[in-house]
Formats: sequence, C-alpha cells, structure tokens
Amino acid sequence: MADGRLSEYRLQRRVNFYETDCAGIVHFSWFFRYLEEAEHAMWRAAGLSIAPVADGVAFPRVSAAFDYHRPLRFEEEFDVVVRVAAIGDRSMRYDCLITRGDTRIATGTTTMACVVTEAGRMKAVPFPEDIISRFEVASPTPS
Amino acid sequence: MADGRLSEYRLQRRVNFYETDCAGIVHFSWFFRYLEEAEHAMWRAAGLSIAPVADGVAFPRVSAAFDYHRPLRFEEEFDVVVRVAAIGDRSMRYDCLITRGDTRIATGTTTMACVVTEAGRMKAVPFPEDIISRFEVASPTPS
Amino acid sequence: MADGRLSEYRLQRRVNFYETDCAGIVHFSWFFRYLEEAEHAMWRAAGLSIAPVADGVAFPRVSAAFDYHRPLRFEEEFDVVVRVAAIGDRSMRYDCLITRGDTRIATGTTTMACVVTEAGRMKAVPFPEDIISRFEVASPTPS
Amino acid sequence: MADGRLSEYRLQRRVNFYETDCAGIVHFSWFFRYLEEAEHAMWRAAGLSIAPVADGVAFPRVSAAFDYHRPLRFEEEFDVVVRVAAIGDRSMRYDCLITRGDTRIATGTTTMACVVTEAGRMKAVPFPEDIISRFEVASPTPS
Repeated sequence: MADGRLSEYRLQRRVNFYETDCAGIVHFSWFFRYLEEAEHAMWRAAGLSIAPVADGVAFPRVSAAFDYHRPLRFEEEFDVVVRVAAIGDRSMRYDCLITRGDTRIATGTTTMACVVTEAGRMKAVPFPEDIISRFEVASPTPS
Repeated sequence: MADGRLSEYRLQRRVNFYETDCAGIVHFSWFFRYLEEAEHAMWRAAGLSIAPVADGVAFPRVSAAFDYHRPLRFEEEFDVVVRVAAIGDRSMRYDCLITRGDTRIATGTTTMACVVTEAGRMKAVPFPEDIISRFEVASPTPS
Repeated sequence: MADGRLSEYRLQRRVNFYETDCAGIVHFSWFFRYLEEAEHAMWRAAGLSIAPVADGVAFPRVSAAFDYHRPLRFEEEFDVVVRVAAIGDRSMRYDCLITRGDTRIATGTTTMACVVTEAGRMKAVPFPEDIISRFEVASPTPS
Repeated sequence: MADGRLSEYRLQRRVNFYETDCAGIVHFSWFFRYLEEAEHAMWRAAGLSIAPVADGVAFPRVSAAFDYHRPLRFEEEFDVVVRVAAIGDRSMRYDCLITRGDTRIATGTTTMACVVTEAGRMKAVPFPEDIISRFEVASPTPS
C-alpha cells in the first residue's frame, strides 16, 4: 500500500451451518459470496461503498471463477484475501485466495464493470476517479 | 374460487442440492422461500406481480413462522399449498402446508403489509383495491 | 450466568450484499440464519458444537418464527441477541432480538429437538446431560 | 444423443424474488446454482442421481466460472442449457448457456471430479463406468 491506496484485504471468517450442503462441505456457490464479502470490506476500508449511488452508477460482475483445492467444513475458520489484479478504464479485476491455516482451499478471480442504467438498460462508463484513486494493483508477490 | 378470485395455489417442487445442509436435510430457512415461491406464483395466477411498482408501493413481511414435522431430503418432490387466511385493511395473511405425498412436512404462516416509502421510511397504507379484489379468504376446509 | 452456564449471547454483524433483495432490504428469510449464527456462536462459547456427532445425535428445528418491525439495509451494522427461553426434556427454545443501535428490527423464536436417526428415520430423545448442563434459562429481564 | 447417451439438457426456470439483490438484478452467485440445477436434472434424465452414495463416492467441484452478458430480473423466464464438454478418466466438464428468449444472459463452465472419502480425506478415483456410460460429449454446434 502506497500513499493510502489499497491493493489487498484479508477477511477472517468461519463457516456457517447454512453454507454447507448434504455432501458435508461448503457448497461451491458460497465461495463467490466469500470473495464478495472481502471485496466489499476492502471498499469500506478505502472509505467507499459498493452500494448503488444516487446518480445510478453500479458495478455489475463481468466474470467470476474459482478453482477448488480442498473442501471447507462447518465451523472451520478460514481467511479470504482479495487483491487488486488489474485496474482498467472500464473494469477492475480482483484475485482471491482462500486458506485454512497453511492449506490452500480455493483460488478465484472476478472482474466488475462500471455502468449507468439509462431507460432500464445498463451502459458501461469509466470508473469515477474518486474510486479508482483509492486502489492500486497489488504486487505479484502473494501476501 | 368464486368470480375469478383466488384463494389458494399449489406449487410442485423438487429439493435442490444447494437447499440441503450438512445434517443431510433441507435447511429450515428454505421453507420460508418455498412459501414465497408459491405466494408469488399465486399472484401471477391472479394477474399480479409482487414486484415493487412505479408509485413505490411494496409489500414487506410483518411476520413469518413454520412448524416442522418431517425433514425433506435432496431430490424429493413436494407440494407447497398457500391459502389466503385473512384480508385486512392493511395486511394479508397466508397459511401454508408443505407435503410430500401423504406426509405432512411443515405448516407455516406469513403476514404482509402494504407500504409506501417516503424519505427513506416505510409507511403502512391500505392495499390497492385492484389487488384486494383478486383474492378471497379460503374456506376453512383444507384442499 | 451462574456457575458457567450460558443463558444468552450477543452477535455483532453487518448486512452482506447478497442478503438483500430487489426491494432494497434484507430478505426476510435471512433473519432465521442470523438467529442460527448467534445460536451456534453461543454453543461454541459453551464449549459445544451443533455439528452432527458420531453417535448420530442431531438437533432439528421444531419451529421458527419472526416478527419484523423495521427493515435492514446493505452494510448496516446490527446485533443479534439470542436467549435461552426454555429447556425441556426433549426440546430447547430460544428467543431472539435483532437491533440496529436503539432500533428494534425483529423479534424471533425457535425450538429445536434432540433426535437420533435410526434406519433413516428421526426419533426424539432427551438432550444429553453434558449439553443441558451448559445452559440455563435467561431471566425475563432483557439484556 | 446416440444410443441413449445424454449430452445436453435444457431447464426452464423463472427468477425467484430471493435470488435478486439490492441492485435490482439476480446476484451473480445464483448462476452457479442455476447451472447445478440443470446438471442434476440431466443426471436424473440419465437415470442417475448426484446424491452421495453408499460406498462413499462423491462428485466435488474442481472449478466453476461464469461470464455475465446481461442481467436477469425478478420473474423473468430463462433457459439453462448444460452440455457435456469433456469426459476424462477422473473428471467431467460441462458448459452452460443461459438465455432469456434470444438474449444471451451468461455463459459458464464447471469441472467436477469423482472422489472417495477415506479417513476424512477426499481421494480422486475414476468415474464409475455405469455413470460414464450414460453421457457423451456434445457436438460443438450449440443447440
């Protein structure tokens, strides 16, 4: 982190009962929500909110992906590290690493756009400068 | 049903994998979503939608409850019957029976209000007549 | 709390994005999960886990209910207080109060049974003494 | 489909209220559940079930990804087409196309492994022949 710009965030979390499925492990769809929790916590740490704002700017997903290495089970504690991987004119990309102690659980990535909604239709626009200026791309060395 | 007014609706459903938990059964929070699915299907059958409308009228829950009799498991087929239990000036109440074949799985109830949001604050108002006129209270005899 | 028995637990929480719905507020089904999070945290504070154990004892819900007083919105912070309301031979009941600052958001209750599963069928049994002995009914004065 | 082998499946679906978020659209995590619903329906159409079986064989995800092209909103009807993209010795891959009428909503993919759990640890094994024999890789021409 240089001059107050954020490039990564670590969220500590515990598996809730309702996040597991009848195979006895966390359902794979939940990892995308874990990523989002860490991402939004990073935005709050940067003094921002992802909440839709007055002038109609919103940040929909363009893509999202996870590779699953090991399962998570009920009540296990784990870390979600989200890192800024790329900042483009009209998109931002995050990488995500989920670990339980020294065990790699899952690695993910997501890209989001910046849009305004006009007449019920989303249109891509550049990210506002006061958002972009709060982040910088993380160094390639994992934290 | 008399003169086109709806008083109940039956939804047929199958348990999805992501609705189960690590105890091997459907998580209890899902029954409230099953009820809501049947309720919204009943509104569509009545030519209505529960979606927030232009003039800001919305239908938040006032209360919701379920008694659980038997568990549901992955891939089991079940029925959700929702019935109009009471229509008041500013609230509607539904009862709900969930069955798998002849087995009673759960019985529930929910009450919803009609509100408009002014300056970020919800205020109760009477249900619009063109909504109320589509429903009538179900007879006490279960379907 | 006397001689180490727990009678209530307070969980601090923030609304996640995926807990909201297109009416702009937390979906009513989530309050049952908030209650469960606080309940399981209370079990952990008592040195216990609700996870299904080796001898097949499990704790399914018998009933669950919430009254909704005010909505919760994205990123709002709130408290979930769960209190032991009754300890019976084969059931335990909790009450739950959800607040945001001084504002009462919702009040709930849930009852759980203790069962063993034999030949795929649940059978009610008394709660194990080493579980019951960790809890006591909360005094009627709210915390 | 040749000699009874399945290579794709089309699921028709409608957006439920609880699948939307406060941005007014379906939350991106739900697309992974839509894919899974279609996948499990394809297994049922093939006379199979993904449910964990007696000898402990299970089918965890190795990876999952979606690209999002257009949003989905409450009560919209859409199709989920899942196609067998690859059948390997120890993994199967599906592609997924979600459409609303002629509009492409999202494209996804997922890979699953076949494992047995020994001493609490998952170990990859070949897919049972009576599962593999029910599927074949879809032709590259989209349906």
